[in-house]
Amino acid sequence: MCFPRFVLRLPDWVEVLLSDSERVYPTIEERMQLAVDLARRNVQHGTGGPFGAGVFDMETGKLLAPGVNLVVPLRCSTAHAEIVALTIAQQRAGSFDLGSSGLPPYELVSSTEPCAMCLGAVPWSGVRRLVCGARDEDARRVGFDEGAKPGDWVASLEGRGIAVLRDVCRTAAVAVLEQYRSAGGVIYNARPEGAGGDPEQGA
Amino acid sequence: MCFPRFVLRLPDWVEVLLSDSERVYPTIEERMQLAVDLARRNVQHGTGGPFGAGVFDMETGKLLAPGVNLVVPLRCSTAHAEIVALTIAQQRAGSFDLGSSGLPPYELVSSTEPCAMCLGAVPWSGVRRLVCGARDEDARRVGFDEGAKPGDWVASLEGRGIAVLRDVCRTAAVAVLEQYRSAGGVIYNARPEGAGGDPEQGA
Repeated sequence: MCFPRFVLRLPDWVEVLLSDSERVYPTIEERMQLAVDLARRNVQHGTGGPFGAGVFDMETGKLLAPGVNLVVPLRCSTAHAEIVALTIAQQRAGSFDLGSSGLPPYELVSSTEPCAMCLGAVPWSGVRRLVCGARDEDARRVGFDEGAKPGDWVASLEGRGIAVLRDVCRTAAVAVLEQYRSAGGVIYNARPEGAGGDPEQGA
Repeated sequence: MCFPRFVLRLPDWVEVLLSDSERVYPTIEERMQLAVDLARRNVQHGTGGPFGAGVFDMETGKLLAPGVNLVVPLRCSTAHAEIVALTIAQQRAGSFDLGSSGLPPYELVSSTEPCAMCLGAVPWSGVRRLVCGARDEDARRVGFDEGAKPGDWVASLEGRGIAVLRDVCRTAAVAVLEQYRSAGGVIYNARPEGAGGDPEQGA
C-alpha cells in the first residue's frame, strides 16, 4: 500500500503579489485589506472560494503567512483560508505553536468569521488574536454554510487568552462575498443542514 | 517572497503496517481496532500523540485512508488523526467531497471523539458516518483539551444526515490514552481554558 501525500502550496499569483518580503502592514485595517484583497483575487484567478486570511506579527505588522481558500483546486475540504494561513505560518515559524516562547505574538486575520472547523483550529494554533471582517451571518446570507459553532465562541476564545476583534472593514469584506454570489460562483456545501433528520442551526 | 510548502505524509511504519491493500475490515469493531492500534503504535514509534483514525468504505469495509496525530513531527497544529485521514482520503478519492455521487459511502472512524476543530471538519468532508471510541470526557480526564464544541453536536451532525456511533471499543481506546499519560507522554495544549479572562467550558 502506498498512500498519497498531500502538498499544500499557495498559488503562484500569491507569491507574485507578496513578493516584497519587507512590507509591513502597520494598522489592523491594512492587514484586513490584504485578507479581503486575497479573497477577491482568489476568485478572479479561479483558484478557490472568496475567502482570504493572513497571520501577522502583531507588533511589527509583518506578514508571516497568507492564506486563501484552496478547497477545490487541492481537492481538500479542510483547505480553508485560515487553515492554509496557519499551516504555512507554522512551517515558517518552525513550530506547531505560534504562541511558544521565543516567537513574537501573532494574530490571525480572516476576511470572514471562521467556520466551525477553523474556529476550533484557533486555540491549537497559538495565535493571540483573531481579527474578522465579514460576520458569520454575512456568509450564511450569501449561502455559505458556517457549521455549528458554540453560541458563546467569542467568550470562549477570550477565556483562553485569545482576543477577538470583529467587523474590521466589514463592508469591504461582505462586498467580496456578494460579488461572488452575483457572478454565479459555486457554493459547495457537502452536507447541508437539514440533509437528514431534524435540521440543526449553527451559531 | 517564497512561502514554504507543507507536505502531509504518513510515517513509514503506517505504510508497512497496512501493506496489504486488499484487506477488509468487515465489522465496525475491526475498523475501530485499527484506529486504536494506530493510536498505540503512533506513540510507540514516537511519531505523534495517542490518536488514530481511518476512513472506510462503509459497505465493503476497505480502508481508504488511515490517520495518526502528526502535530509535533510535522510542526502543524491541525495535523490531528481525523484531519490526516480525511485529507489523504480525499486525495485518494480525487475529490474534496467524499459524499459526491459516484463514490461509495464513507465513514470516519476515530479512536477518540473529535476535538472542536475535527468535529467542524466532518460535515465538509462528505463522510456519511462518524464512529468514535473514547469519549470527549475520557480525553479531558487524561489532560487533552478538546476545545469548545456545541453541546448538541451529535444531533447537529445527524441533522446533516451524518450518523454518529459512539463508545465502540471504548475501553480499549481509553486504555491507549491512559497508557500515554502513565508513560509521561507530553500533552500540549497551546492555549488552555482559563489562560486569560474568565475560563470557559467546552461541551
